[in-house]
Amino acid sequence: MTSVKNKPSRIFSQASSYFEELQEKICAALEVADGQGQFSTDAWSRKEGGGGRSRVLEEGGIFEKAGVNVSTIHGMMPESIAKKMEVPPSLFFASGISLVLHPQSPMIPTVHANFRCFEREDGDRWFGGGVDLTPYYLFEDDARHFHDQLKRACDVHDKGYYPKFKKWCDEYFFVKHRAEARGVGGVFFDYLRDDAIRIFDFVRSLGDSFLPAYLPIVERRKDEDWGEQERSWQLLRRGRYVEFNLVYDRGTTFGLETNGRVESILMSLPPVVEWHYNRIPDVGTRESDLLMVLRHPREWAANGSA
Amino acid sequence: MTSVKNKPSRIFSQASSYFEELQEKICAALEVADGQGQFSTDAWSRKEGGGGRSRVLEEGGIFEKAGVNVSTIHGMMPESIAKKMEVPPSLFFASGISLVLHPQSPMIPTVHANFRCFEREDGDRWFGGGVDLTPYYLFEDDARHFHDQLKRACDVHDKGYYPKFKKWCDEYFFVKHRAEARGVGGVFFDYLRDDAIRIFDFVRSLGDSFLPAYLPIVERRKDEDWGEQERSWQLLRRGRYVEFNLVYDRGTTFGLETNGRVESILMSLPPVVEWHYNRIPDVGTRESDLLMVLRHPREWAANGSA
Repeated sequence: MTSVKNKPSRIFSQASSYFEELQEKICAALEVADGQGQFSTDAWSRKEGGGGRSRVLEEGGIFEKAGVNVSTIHGMMPESIAKKMEVPPSLFFASGISLVLHPQSPMIPTVHANFRCFEREDGDRWFGGGVDLTPYYLFEDDARHFHDQLKRACDVHDKGYYPKFKKWCDEYFFVKHRAEARGVGGVFFDYLRDDAIRIFDFVRSLGDSFLPAYLPIVERRKDEDWGEQERSWQLLRRGRYVEFNLVYDRGTTFGLETNGRVESILMSLPPVVEWHYNRIPDVGTRESDLLMVLRHPREWAANGSA
Repeated sequence: MTSVKNKPSRIFSQASSYFEELQEKICAALEVADGQGQFSTDAWSRKEGGGGRSRVLEEGGIFEKAGVNVSTIHGMMPESIAKKMEVPPSLFFASGISLVLHPQSPMIPTVHANFRCFEREDGDRWFGGGVDLTPYYLFEDDARHFHDQLKRACDVHDKGYYPKFKKWCDEYFFVKHRAEARGVGGVFFDYLRDDAIRIFDFVRSLGDSFLPAYLPIVERRKDEDWGEQERSWQLLRRGRYVEFNLVYDRGTTFGLETNGRVESILMSLPPVVEWHYNRIPDVGTRESDLLMVLRHPREWAANGSA
């Protein structure tokens, strides 16, 4: 398909609808899990074309800040972006769902998921996405459960996906200047251009696996004790999250450079963050144990990634 | 001078010594102003060549976090940096002082100053620097005093400097995705390659003007009342500071890309920061008044910049 079009393809529209349904489903389940907070909804449109729906829950029972955003936009691709993507500038369509959940308790990990479909006017189309977990304290069971669920969703489609996308995730969510991973990883993929129907099926499986991958961890950890020290460590680690998102994250960069809706793009940033000079945990503490894992990413899925 | 050298020039060494003296002078004066806190000192060296001294005061009487850093480094310039600077990659020498002060009180503005000398092995040499003020609440007297002091330091050397560098500052410290200035500005300049002795004299005047430009503002505002609401606004606005530094600031980028000392580079980040979804102050409030000024930079110096 290389004919120039001014409307997106059928599969793009299906992907876009799926992202909207997924947003509904995830927000409904998160409200139940939270027990107190409710999502507000902002529908917005973009001057250059398209728009989105941002849903945010702040100061809930479990979630200090939870943002789940969908958007479907179109327009001319800025040259800077085209250069980074190594494609010629052209009319493009982009649809995606992006979520970041920041729990109040340092014992519950932060989680991120994003799925997107990108289409150029010449019919060139690809899917990208990722799901990754950022704990403040390491519970190995949680990391294993999370990866097992993602691996299961991948394996149905291609046994090669999980090992490939797990590695990609470790490489992508890497805070280079700190020489540490953002968290315990998950999966990440981009520019998947093979058979679109097959890829979209896979993206759907992974999207559907988000809640079973994450919610059991919330259930397991919500009653863990924590105090000042754990909170302080969480706020410091959240700073690394901000550093990654603002310095390296392609989605954030893309959004800011395409004149995207700033409040929706930066919904990913944690509600409260601290930066202290040179605060390094003592060896042998739980805080230091986490750093060891971030510096040396492990295999977590039941059958490794072999 | 185009002969290749493996030692920096005399003027570079003088600049480097001046930056060290200025660090001493500023830290001593800030300790007096703070009344409680004391600067700690970390001397560090860089694997690729050179090193620095980071001085930090945390949780003082006035300053919640104050960082004053000097460094003098040398090595091969990474290709990415050379490209941005539009010079061929080569051996380089860089020396500078950089400070950011984050007061506890939202009534006292955050301030930043940086002066640097850069020299390449072929003898190409330039100075850069800047001083700028970021209030959370606007006191016009403070902005005027600050700009008057900077203008005076500029005018001694060249009547054209202040208007040129004031404008450059407004352009540089601009948070593009928010369409607002970081603060009420000051002066900014880079790649000053004219007569080195003259430029260094100017840099010295500006460096010496930092304390008289800033400290009287601290004195005037330290007893102003503030409460929850003002603190909350300060924490939100500090988020914009982080956004600027991590997304746009060339010094931060240069430091992270040249494998600089991360804790010294990111000393500039505020101690406590908040991001809330779409929090916009009501029209007519003092918070909204500040935004108006950030969106429409003004002339503050007594004789304007004419």
